[in-house]
Amino acid sequence: MLCAISSSLVILHKPLSRALRFPIPKLPLTTNPRGLSSLSTAASPLSNNVRAGGRTGALSPAPVTEDVQKIDVNPPKGTRDFPPEDMRLRSWLFYNFREVSGLFGFEEVDFPVLESEALFIRKAGEEIRDQLYCFEDRGNRRVALRPELTPSLARLVIQKGKSLSLPLKWFAVGQCWRYERMTRGRRREHYQWNMDIIGVPEVTAEAELISAIVTFFKRIGITASDVGFKVSSRKVLQEVLRRYSIPEALFGKVCIIIDKIEKLPLEDIKKELESVGVLEEAIERLLQVLSIKSLTKLEEILGDSGEAVADLKQLFSLADKFGYSEWIQFDASIVRGLAYYTGIVFEGFDRGGKLRAICGGGRYDRLLSTFGGDDIPACGFGFGDAVIIELLKEKGRLPELGLQVENIVCALDPGLQGAAATVATILREKGQSVDLVLESKPLKWVFKRASRINANRLILVGDSEWQRGMVGVKILSTGEQQEIKLDELD
Amino acid sequence: MLCAISSSLVILHKPLSRALRFPIPKLPLTTNPRGLSSLSTAASPLSNNVRAGGRTGALSPAPVTEDVQKIDVNPPKGTRDFPPEDMRLRSWLFYNFREVSGLFGFEEVDFPVLESEALFIRKAGEEIRDQLYCFEDRGNRRVALRPELTPSLARLVIQKGKSLSLPLKWFAVGQCWRYERMTRGRRREHYQWNMDIIGVPEVTAEAELISAIVTFFKRIGITASDVGFKVSSRKVLQEVLRRYSIPEALFGKVCIIIDKIEKLPLEDIKKELESVGVLEEAIERLLQVLSIKSLTKLEEILGDSGEAVADLKQLFSLADKFGYSEWIQFDASIVRGLAYYTGIVFEGFDRGGKLRAICGGGRYDRLLSTFGGDDIPACGFGFGDAVIIELLKEKGRLPELGLQVENIVCALDPGLQGAAATVATILREKGQSVDLVLESKPLKWVFKRASRINANRLILVGDSEWQRGMVGVKILSTGEQQEIKLDELD
Repeated sequence: MLCAISSSLVILHKPLSRALRFPIPKLPLTTNPRGLSSLSTAASPLSNNVRAGGRTGALSPAPVTEDVQKIDVNPPKGTRDFPPEDMRLRSWLFYNFREVSGLFGFEEVDFPVLESEALFIRKAGEEIRDQLYCFEDRGNRRVALRPELTPSLARLVIQKGKSLSLPLKWFAVGQCWRYERMTRGRRREHYQWNMDIIGVPEVTAEAELISAIVTFFKRIGITASDVGFKVSSRKVLQEVLRRYSIPEALFGKVCIIIDKIEKLPLEDIKKELESVGVLEEAIERLLQVLSIKSLTKLEEILGDSGEAVADLKQLFSLADKFGYSEWIQFDASIVRGLAYYTGIVFEGFDRGGKLRAICGGGRYDRLLSTFGGDDIPACGFGFGDAVIIELLKEKGRLPELGLQVENIVCALDPGLQGAAATVATILREKGQSVDLVLESKPLKWVFKRASRINANRLILVGDSEWQRGMVGVKILSTGEQQEIKLDELD
Repeated sequence: MLCAISSSLVILHKPLSRALRFPIPKLPLTTNPRGLSSLSTAASPLSNNVRAGGRTGALSPAPVTEDVQKIDVNPPKGTRDFPPEDMRLRSWLFYNFREVSGLFGFEEVDFPVLESEALFIRKAGEEIRDQLYCFEDRGNRRVALRPELTPSLARLVIQKGKSLSLPLKWFAVGQCWRYERMTRGRRREHYQWNMDIIGVPEVTAEAELISAIVTFFKRIGITASDVGFKVSSRKVLQEVLRRYSIPEALFGKVCIIIDKIEKLPLEDIKKELESVGVLEEAIERLLQVLSIKSLTKLEEILGDSGEAVADLKQLFSLADKFGYSEWIQFDASIVRGLAYYTGIVFEGFDRGGKLRAICGGGRYDRLLSTFGGDDIPACGFGFGDAVIIELLKEKGRLPELGLQVENIVCALDPGLQGAAATVATILREKGQSVDLVLESKPLKWVFKRASRINANRLILVGDSEWQRGMVGVKILSTGEQQEIKLDELD
C-alpha cells in the first residue's frame, strides 16, 4: 500500500524545492571549541503547510523532501522537551509520587500510551472524547494516545480476572494526551500520577487515597493553608434525580454538564440540562442542591437515611482519624468531568484561587461493566504534573535541584587519558560518580566545569605522580589538596 | 456564582425529603471477598471492523456505538501492559540504567514521544522510515511516535544553542515505537536507554560509553563470557569507497545496505549496492574488507595512515585502561543500520548467538547539519529493554523482585477502622510502608495477604488494647508477638 503511494511522490518534489529555496544561513564556526556559537539558535519553524495536496490520509507516508534543510527545533505544539534542569524537577516529582505510593503499600503498574480508541469512547459525551489524539494505524485499527489511565486499568483488571487477589492497590505515573486548544498552562500532554483501589466498597478506600495525596503535599512542602480538597458524592445528584424520576441513563450526561458550571453561564447549563431531558423543576432543584457547602445542611435537605450523606459523614470521620480534617470540606458543586464516577468525588484546589484543580478522583463502582466485565467496587485519583509545579512556583517553593557529580577526573597530559580512565573506573566501581574529562583542556576550564557540576573533588592525573602510583586530589569546598595512592582512593 | 442560589434553599427542603424514598439497590457482595469470580475472563476481542463506514479519515471521530459492550481486553497488538510483576522488572532495569548513568556523571533528559514526522525522515532509505507510526493531527501537522531518541536529542541541542556548555553528557530512558511485522521477540514499542556525549571529537567518548554499558552489565550479573561488543568504524568503508572514487553522498545508503548483510543473501546485497551505483570492483573489495576480524589485518590492507585504523587502535588501547578489553573485539562487518553514523560503531551481542543485538551505537559527527544546525562532534548508544530481559531469562539470572510492604495494619473490629487509620498514619509519617486493611476481614485472610505482600509486621488494632493506647504487634518471620504503646511504635 505504501509503495503505491510513494511512486507518485516525484511529482510533488519539484514545487516543494521551489518553495524551500531560501538558503539557511550557517553561522560561522567559533574558534572556541567549548562554545556552541556554531549552533543556529533562531527557531524559524518550517511551516507544516508548505506541503501541497492538503489533508492526506492517516499513515500515508509524507513525501521525502530531499532538500528540507532546517527542521523546526521546537517540540510539537503543546508538548515539552525535558532538558536536564526540567528533567531534574520531573524526576523529583515522580520520585515523590512513587515514595508516597510505596508508603501506602501500592504497587506500580503501567499500560500502553497507545490504546484502542474504543476504550475511551463512552456514551456520556465527555469532553475527553472530542480531544482524543486518535488515528488509524497501518493495520487499520483505530487507536488513540491515552487521555487518562483509568480505562486501561479497568481493561487490565478485566483481562487478569480471577488471577488477581483483591483488593488491588495500584499506582501508575504515565503520560496522557489531549488535543485541545492551547491556553495558558494547558498543554497537550502531561504526566499523571494515579492511585487506585480495586475491590473495596467502603469509604475507607477514598479516605486512604486522600490521605496519600495529603502525605504527598506535606512531603513537597505544601500545607493545608495552600491547598484543600472539596468533597462531595455523586449519590447526592443521584438522589435528587431519582426524586424526579429521571432515568439512571441520563445520570452520566447530567454530571458532565454540571461539571462545566464554573466555565459556562448558568443559562447555558440550564439549556444543556433541558436538552438532555431534565425537567425544569428538577434543574432548579439540582442547581440549588449544588450550592450547599455544609454537610449538616445537606443532611437537613436529603434526610439522614440516604447513602450520600452516610458516605460523606463516614469520610469526614475517617479524615479526622487519618489526621487531615483541616484539608477537606464538603462542596456539593463538585461532580467531576468524567462519566464513570458513582460515589464520593473530590478535587484538590489551590486556596489562592489562581489555578485549576490540582488533582481529582472518586469512586467508580460500575466502570468495568461498561467494558463488558463484571463490576468490582473501585476508586482512584489522577494528579497531574503541571498544576502542582505552577503552585510550587507561585509559593516560591520549587526545590533547588542542581547537578551533583562527586568527582571530576582530569589527565594533565594527553598521554595520560588512559590513566585517567583507570582512575575513573576505580572510583565508579566503588560507587562514586565521576565526570571524566574526555579531552585535553586547560585547568581553568576544568575548574569551571567542576563548579558547574557541583563536584566535591577534583582528581588530577599527572605524569610524575602517576609513575609513583599516586593522583592529586583537591577537595573543592576547602581547596585542600593532597596526593593519594591509587589503591587508597575511595 | 453558586452563592446567589443558596439563599433559596430552604424552600427545597420539604419536596426533596419526600422524593427520596427510592432505595439505591446495593450490589450483592460476594461471599468470597478475595475472589474475582465476578469478573469476566473471556477475552473475546471486539473486532474493530464492527463499525460501519469503512476507513474514516485521520482524527475524524469514530461513531459512538451505543451498543459496544465488550472491549478487547488485550493491549493493542505489539504493545504491553505492565502488571505489578512486570513493572517491578522494568523499574529494576530503569533503576540500573539511571544509576550507571549517574556514576558516569550523565544528566537525564527527555523529549516528546510524539514528534514532527520530518525529524525522522532522512534520505538514506533506512528501514526506520517505513516503520513510522505517523499520522496527521487535528491541526494538520504530520507527526510520528518517535522510533528512536537521537533525532530529538539533536533537535534539542540545536534549539538550546549557545546556552549549552559542552561537552554535554546526557542520557534518556524513553519509549520508542516502530510499526513492524510481529515476529518472536519483536514488539512495536520498547524502552530505550540512550547515553550521548555531545562536543567531544576524541575516541575517549566512545570508550567511555562502552565502559558505561559494561558497568551496567556487571551490575545486573552479566559477564564478558555472556556478552561482547563488536567494534568497527565507518571510516573503514569510507576509505574503501574513497579509493574507488565513490561519491560521499552514497555513503549512508551503502551502510544501510551493508547492515543487512546477515539478513539477506550475498547476491541481493551485491545487487543493491550495484543499484545505488557502486562499481563491481568496489563491491568485491568492500565485501572483502567487511570480513576482516583483526585489527592487524585491517592495518595491513588499509595502511596505518588513515583515521579508521588510528581511531580503532586508540579505542582498543583505552578499553584496556578502562578495564574492559576482554569485552570487545574488532569486526569490520559492523556498520549499524542508521544513516547518521560517521566513525566508530559498536554492537553488543550475546555470545550464545541466540539473540539479536543487545545494544548499539557510535559516532555521529554530522547529524546536526542534516537538520540545518551546524555540526558538533557527538556519539551515543541505544540499549533496548527487551533483548536484555531475554538474555537474563536465558541465563536464569532474572532478579527476584517481590512486593514488600513493611507493615500490615488491621482493625479487629469495624468500629476501629478509624483507629487503624491513625496507626497507619503514624507509621507512614515515620517512613514505614503500610498496607492498611480497608475492610472488615477474617484474620485468616489478613495473614494470607500479609504473606503475599511480604510484610515484616502485622499490627492489630483491638478494642481493649486501643483503650489503653496500645496495639498488638506480631513479627511475622518469628511469630513473636507483643503489645506496644502507640507513641513507641516505630
